[in-house]
Amino acid sequence: MKRIKCVIAYDGANFAGYQIQPDKRTVQGEIEKALERMHKGRKIRIHAAGRTDGKVHAVGQVIHFDSPLSLREEQWVKALNALLTDEIAVRKAEFVDSSFHARYSAKGKEYRYRILRKKERDPFLRHYAYHFPEPLDVPAMRKAMGYFVGTHDFTAFCSAKTETEDRVRTIEAFELSETKDEMVFRVRGNGFLYNMVRIIIGTVLEVGSGKRDADEIPEILARKDRNLAGKTVPGHGLYLWEVFY
Amino acid sequence: MKRIKCVIAYDGANFAGYQIQPDKRTVQGEIEKALERMHKGRKIRIHAAGRTDGKVHAVGQVIHFDSPLSLREEQWVKALNALLTDEIAVRKAEFVDSSFHARYSAKGKEYRYRILRKKERDPFLRHYAYHFPEPLDVPAMRKAMGYFVGTHDFTAFCSAKTETEDRVRTIEAFELSETKDEMVFRVRGNGFLYNMVRIIIGTVLEVGSGKRDADEIPEILARKDRNLAGKTVPGHGLYLWEVFY
Repeated sequence: MKRIKCVIAYDGANFAGYQIQPDKRTVQGEIEKALERMHKGRKIRIHAAGRTDGKVHAVGQVIHFDSPLSLREEQWVKALNALLTDEIAVRKAEFVDSSFHARYSAKGKEYRYRILRKKERDPFLRHYAYHFPEPLDVPAMRKAMGYFVGTHDFTAFCSAKTETEDRVRTIEAFELSETKDEMVFRVRGNGFLYNMVRIIIGTVLEVGSGKRDADEIPEILARKDRNLAGKTVPGHGLYLWEVFY
Repeated sequence: MKRIKCVIAYDGANFAGYQIQPDKRTVQGEIEKALERMHKGRKIRIHAAGRTDGKVHAVGQVIHFDSPLSLREEQWVKALNALLTDEIAVRKAEFVDSSFHARYSAKGKEYRYRILRKKERDPFLRHYAYHFPEPLDVPAMRKAMGYFVGTHDFTAFCSAKTETEDRVRTIEAFELSETKDEMVFRVRGNGFLYNMVRIIIGTVLEVGSGKRDADEIPEILARKDRNLAGKTVPGHGLYLWEVFY
């Protein structure tokens, strides 16, 4: 038995998210179906670093699984890509120790959030960037972003559906880059709660729109009330960019 | 009655091409449906500069139509975008003289063809660039491209289904730009026959792959036989980029 770690990318547009669900098309479902074919009907369970939501994309998602097949690393890449929909690409496969776990061994993750700033809509980006052409106060946003960096209890910035008890996480970096037509947020941290990136970005955009003040952020963090934070931005602008081990 | 010229963009991935067809989803069908709603059930026929095929995209397609409605130019943009699928964007609307015709008044067009050169496939570009990672002899391709520039009978470089009698066209410019992972062809001319851009690019790629010699091009043009030219490259890498009047 060998444990295989794969780095995968996927276009989330036509998936009901990563995690397998009955009667829905999911990334996990597609990969497990391909693995089942390779293993002649035997079910192979895969484990991912993070479970992305519907419409959310991945450039560097990481999964692992165990297999008795004797394929070389590059043969795993080819065989899986040959069996998978072209919405998913296996970028790399690597043998790892049986103590490796895609989720529990991860030391951190980087997410990116892409915003289309130009006024006119862009048919080519409708699944790939959140169209938000309204004026934004970028210095105020950067000030707000600064308050998130560090170790905090992120209860106010995760979905009410979050089941995890411990909501203390560390955001190591939170950056914003701008081009003429786009704005990209990069956020790197040791772990993220359910909807955490999307609620943080939503709150930063509300600061940028003048709906709230950057200096409210420490108070919102301290009060741990989801209702005090901003709206959850749409999933289609979000990318699980990289997982660190 | 006013004649309105619109510049439109569309993602061709989920359309059976531009031209209206019974029981198929087409760009023309979607726009005429939106116009019919705006005109309370009255059918408004639109005319386009070029009829793009299935999967083919447009960044600067031009259409015109006549309407008795009294809307301002920017109101046409807003009203149509509000009624249209987000796969189509009306970028601009402008009143034109009744002698203007999107197709017959056009003096020229620019098409672009996008090729993904990196070895690994990219889920995000599966509808937007032709994946062709094989080695290419770019100097040989540039030599081949040079033979197409100028005025020629392009019978050998159009689909056998072409109905147009006069196949003499002028290619004014044919350029190739390269980045690390992509190659983009730009071709500008006074008019293009059915599948002409895709057959020319297919032939240039065969020169690049060493399957044929650049110096065969003048002979192929002269012999006017479609069977002598290269394969038609897939539609999803093609963009109708701009129409000149």
